Amino acid sequence: MKRIAILGSTGSIGQSTLSIVENFPERYSVASLAAGRNLNVALEQCRRWRPSVVSMADEALADTLKTRLAAAGITGIEVVHGTRGTIEVATLPDVDFVVSAIVGVSGLEATYAAVRAGKTVGLANKECLVAAGELIIAEAHRNNVALLPIDSEHNAIHQCMRGGRTEEVRQIWLTASGGPFRTKPLSEFANITVAEALKHPTWVMGRRITIDSATMLNKGLEIIEACRLFDLPPSQVKVTIHPQSTIHSLVEFIDGSILAQLSVTDMRLPILYALSYPERVASDLTFDMAKIGQLDFSPPDFERFPCLRLAYEAAEAGGNHCIALNAADEVAVAAFLQEQIPFVDIPRTIERVLELTPPGHPATIAEVLEQDQLAREVAHQSLGDQPQLQSFSRPFRQ
Amino acid sequence: MKRIAILGSTGSIGQSTLSIVENFPERYSVASLAAGRNLNVALEQCRRWRPSVVSMADEALADTLKTRLAAAGITGIEVVHGTRGTIEVATLPDVDFVVSAIVGVSGLEATYAAVRAGKTVGLANKECLVAAGELIIAEAHRNNVALLPIDSEHNAIHQCMRGGRTEEVRQIWLTASGGPFRTKPLSEFANITVAEALKHPTWVMGRRITIDSATMLNKGLEIIEACRLFDLPPSQVKVTIHPQSTIHSLVEFIDGSILAQLSVTDMRLPILYALSYPERVASDLTFDMAKIGQLDFSPPDFERFPCLRLAYEAAEAGGNHCIALNAADEVAVAAFLQEQIPFVDIPRTIERVLELTPPGHPATIAEVLEQDQLAREVAHQSLGDQPQLQSFSRPFRQ
Repeated sequence: MKRIAILGSTGSIGQSTLSIVENFPERYSVASLAAGRNLNVALEQCRRWRPSVVSMADEALADTLKTRLAAAGITGIEVVHGTRGTIEVATLPDVDFVVSAIVGVSGLEATYAAVRAGKTVGLANKECLVAAGELIIAEAHRNNVALLPIDSEHNAIHQCMRGGRTEEVRQIWLTASGGPFRTKPLSEFANITVAEALKHPTWVMGRRITIDSATMLNKGLEIIEACRLFDLPPSQVKVTIHPQSTIHSLVEFIDGSILAQLSVTDMRLPILYALSYPERVASDLTFDMAKIGQLDFSPPDFERFPCLRLAYEAAEAGGNHCIALNAADEVAVAAFLQEQIPFVDIPRTIERVLELTPPGHPATIAEVLEQDQLAREVAHQSLGDQPQLQSFSRPFRQ
Repeated sequence: MKRIAILGSTGSIGQSTLSIVENFPERYSVASLAAGRNLNVALEQCRRWRPSVVSMADEALADTLKTRLAAAGITGIEVVHGTRGTIEVATLPDVDFVVSAIVGVSGLEATYAAVRAGKTVGLANKECLVAAGELIIAEAHRNNVALLPIDSEHNAIHQCMRGGRTEEVRQIWLTASGGPFRTKPLSEFANITVAEALKHPTWVMGRRITIDSATMLNKGLEIIEACRLFDLPPSQVKVTIHPQSTIHSLVEFIDGSILAQLSVTDMRLPILYALSYPERVASDLTFDMAKIGQLDFSPPDFERFPCLRLAYEAAEAGGNHCIALNAADEVAVAAFLQEQIPFVDIPRTIERVLELTPPGHPATIAEVLEQDQLAREVAHQSLGDQPQLQSFSRPFRQ
């Protein structure tokens, strides 16, 4: 029986994880939950799963949850809050496996604490590897902790890696759908609207990740994650455009063999893989190889998607530049979604922030958070810097 | 240093194996060769590789080779002949790895002897697994001997199998190009000419295997090989039509993940994989995943390709029926190539022979060879049995 802590239990990955626990009660149980801000779902999860500890985003929410639990006659659940609470959830002595699925930098401290406490960690939070990858990987090595990727691309790589030893890998190939603008002429990029950018061809996702998919910054973050997770230089992490998203990624070995992983596009599969690794557990997810039809592959266009180039540069520089890439993108995407800057200014903002970022490698999570804050400030300042911005963005402003 | 015996050294697989030994002299050396009937190539291979033993098909060829070696001043090579000679080549005490690449049933005895002698065997000969698979696999288990497939499909499966344990496999998928008649209407099959059937879309191969590709009996034999090699019932071995032959085959695991192997279509890759297993050795074979373009997958048509159905039936029955499938096909294909029977009579002949085959499982290689002989006789008799044959084949006969 694996006892699971879920950081981000009310989100999509958290709920998928709970649906797996539901299906395999003989294998997995819920030890503790970090539920964030959604009180109703948190209460429901407490009722159903009876975790020993649950953490809410702040003290007020924790107090309300306590009251509601008491009113519902649910006892024996310790309610904690904040970063400290999340860390408690992640490091309880009886936890075997931590699902790290809190979106953004707020999951860093608790994930790092889980690794330090020797827990096996399933990583669904991009920031853990992009912003704090060097620290977390070093700590995982030190504690001999397994980090199992819970996203389709890196999970595919993890599976394909089993076909050889690490030193037998020539390079890896991340597949990318290419997003909604894969075939759009570069000349039309200046006029891309928010509505156009939010239409992703294959996956339904949150707003930031959908825009990141349209700029391909999303794939850029995955390049950095892959470098950290599989200990590869950026030159050994390639991207191939595969609009159908059927092959989730590939590993090319030194002898010229390439292994690929395919499956239905269902997040339960990588979660189940991570929870059950090194075993595999039978699921009802199927995929008829005789009926999948056509798969296409083509090279990525670095001119149309400058975010890819920026990500390679950040991956090469490491440390502060990876933090800045992520932070600047978050700020720029928010500005785009509020129609403050045009689509093409997302990479311009990131590039400006990267240029202004001093080289360096944070030695603690606190330093990572500090760098992240700094990069966001620079990004906000940079939003006003674009020569194009004046003329373009004025009509959208109130 | 692995010392290699090559059964079938003058054939295509034999020569590819020697080109690998040439490229990796620090890893592999040639211990012994079974060279068959090609005296000139045999002499050249003796000159270049100085095997300790070389075997020719018969005594006369062996005597001529001895004379030619003496004339060339090449000493220290023992020249032997026949099945006994091939067995000596395969079982020399200093041999570590045997490449079994003699086409047809004549390689069975020596391959079986190699397994009994505890040698690791690279299998490029279909008959070893189709006709004698049950015996050879049982003997391999008894002697804890690794059998490594040297053909693109089974080699791909072997690589993908590393992604999980045997009991975690849900099913495997063999890819099939579909041959030259993949899209030809069934109504036109009666008029298929030898020249049409010999045009294979992706691979350049021998005449029998090219016709087997056109009838898809080739894939049928591979289904049986896969059942034996990976200990799977026929129901767990599926076929998907993939005209580009880029993905060489796939393994589907119980959790719903599918692993696929891709590479250039170059036989040196599976040979190198088998020779170096469990390691991988760097080669200059590359494959740009960003530039492979389009891959297609569709279900096989059992009506147009009855040989597939016959192969599943033979695989299910095992023993004598697998021997009969292979033997009847060889006779029928030879008759088609000599324009004695139409294309559509190849499966009809095989079906007739399978119907006339008594159930049974040979206990020795001698019994396998006996069953093979019997099946060939029945096949020859069946060639005249076809109701269509009279009218169709007469114009072609002399």
